[in-house]
Amino acid sequence: MPQGKPLVVPDDGLTTRQRRNRPLLAVHTGEMKGKSTAAFGMALRAWNQGWSVGVFQFVKSAKWKVGEENAFRALGALHESSGQGGPVEWHKMGEGWSWSRKPGSDEDHAANAREGWAEIKRRLAEERHDFYVLDEFTYPLHWGWIDTAEVVAALRDRPGRQHVVITGRNAPDELIEAADLVTHMTKVKHPMDAGQKGQRGIEW
Amino acid sequence: MPQGKPLVVPDDGLTTRQRRNRPLLAVHTGEMKGKSTAAFGMALRAWNQGWSVGVFQFVKSAKWKVGEENAFRALGALHESSGQGGPVEWHKMGEGWSWSRKPGSDEDHAANAREGWAEIKRRLAEERHDFYVLDEFTYPLHWGWIDTAEVVAALRDRPGRQHVVITGRNAPDELIEAADLVTHMTKVKHPMDAGQKGQRGIEW
Repeated sequence: MPQGKPLVVPDDGLTTRQRRNRPLLAVHTGEMKGKSTAAFGMALRAWNQGWSVGVFQFVKSAKWKVGEENAFRALGALHESSGQGGPVEWHKMGEGWSWSRKPGSDEDHAANAREGWAEIKRRLAEERHDFYVLDEFTYPLHWGWIDTAEVVAALRDRPGRQHVVITGRNAPDELIEAADLVTHMTKVKHPMDAGQKGQRGIEW
Repeated sequence: MPQGKPLVVPDDGLTTRQRRNRPLLAVHTGEMKGKSTAAFGMALRAWNQGWSVGVFQFVKSAKWKVGEENAFRALGALHESSGQGGPVEWHKMGEGWSWSRKPGSDEDHAANAREGWAEIKRRLAEERHDFYVLDEFTYPLHWGWIDTAEVVAALRDRPGRQHVVITGRNAPDELIEAADLVTHMTKVKHPMDAGQKGQRGIEW
């Protein structure tokens, strides 16, 4: 259990309050499930603070994580109807980005991924959300579809107080370097190793 | 991204469907945050399936994780009012267990923890919930307040299809042994190392 006490007090000229309120860039990487799941758990706290939550899923299939999506859409609707929590936007690459007029092309995932990042970059500049989940965003970086240096620069220079959580395997070193919080999800044991297939309510 | 394909097909006499629907015992351990957060992310999927979710927090302070608690209480209320998702119960040791007539004693955390486990054991026998989060439950096991062998036996013999996720550092070996899915959350980098204190919406 974290005690809320920093190990060192940095000589950065900031007050504790300024330092406390710095926007966070978190990366969840490693080979084990739990990377996205933990990001969505963090988003629950953001929602509870009344923050605007924006989720951007860089996934091909719409099947996985539909549970989290439905729950967050319900929380977003609750905000609309009763003012509880914050607003929620949930965007998926797999079905074509919702802001895009053209449907997602099966042929050019790289172009779809780049379009997603371009929109996120615009939103960061506009301070559109308080809390971003860029789910499975490490893949287009790892595959070279999107330039990691450009992403790191845009994140470093983002205005205001926008928290960003990026998930996925093979997070590039420059991203790890730039992040404030990095967690590696390590597999100790997984039921698929024992021949169990994914199941409803657990994997999706 | 999991492909849903098992690495081996075990010789256990079960059909794929039977094997698929086996209830899961998951353990999230390791020194890094994300253990509980990922468990609550899993609970979102359970809620979305209409499952009964029971959360039991073996924590002393009520401050941490209030974001997740509020979000899940909102989802539970949404179930009550509109039938969306499943019912949610959220119980905390810190304030005295809600089913208990006596307030939690500051003097005897061990007795409080044992009382929490006794109730969970009763509920498992009654198949009260579909999805249990036993948050920070490894601590009373690690400290010897609750007998790990008894917990493992009760979990192994639980009837029906009840999924259980246990979180916390120092998970005992027998529990790891008994679990189907074990994830270790490893710290790569944490902002508290750089002198940043915990902040609202991020840590709670």
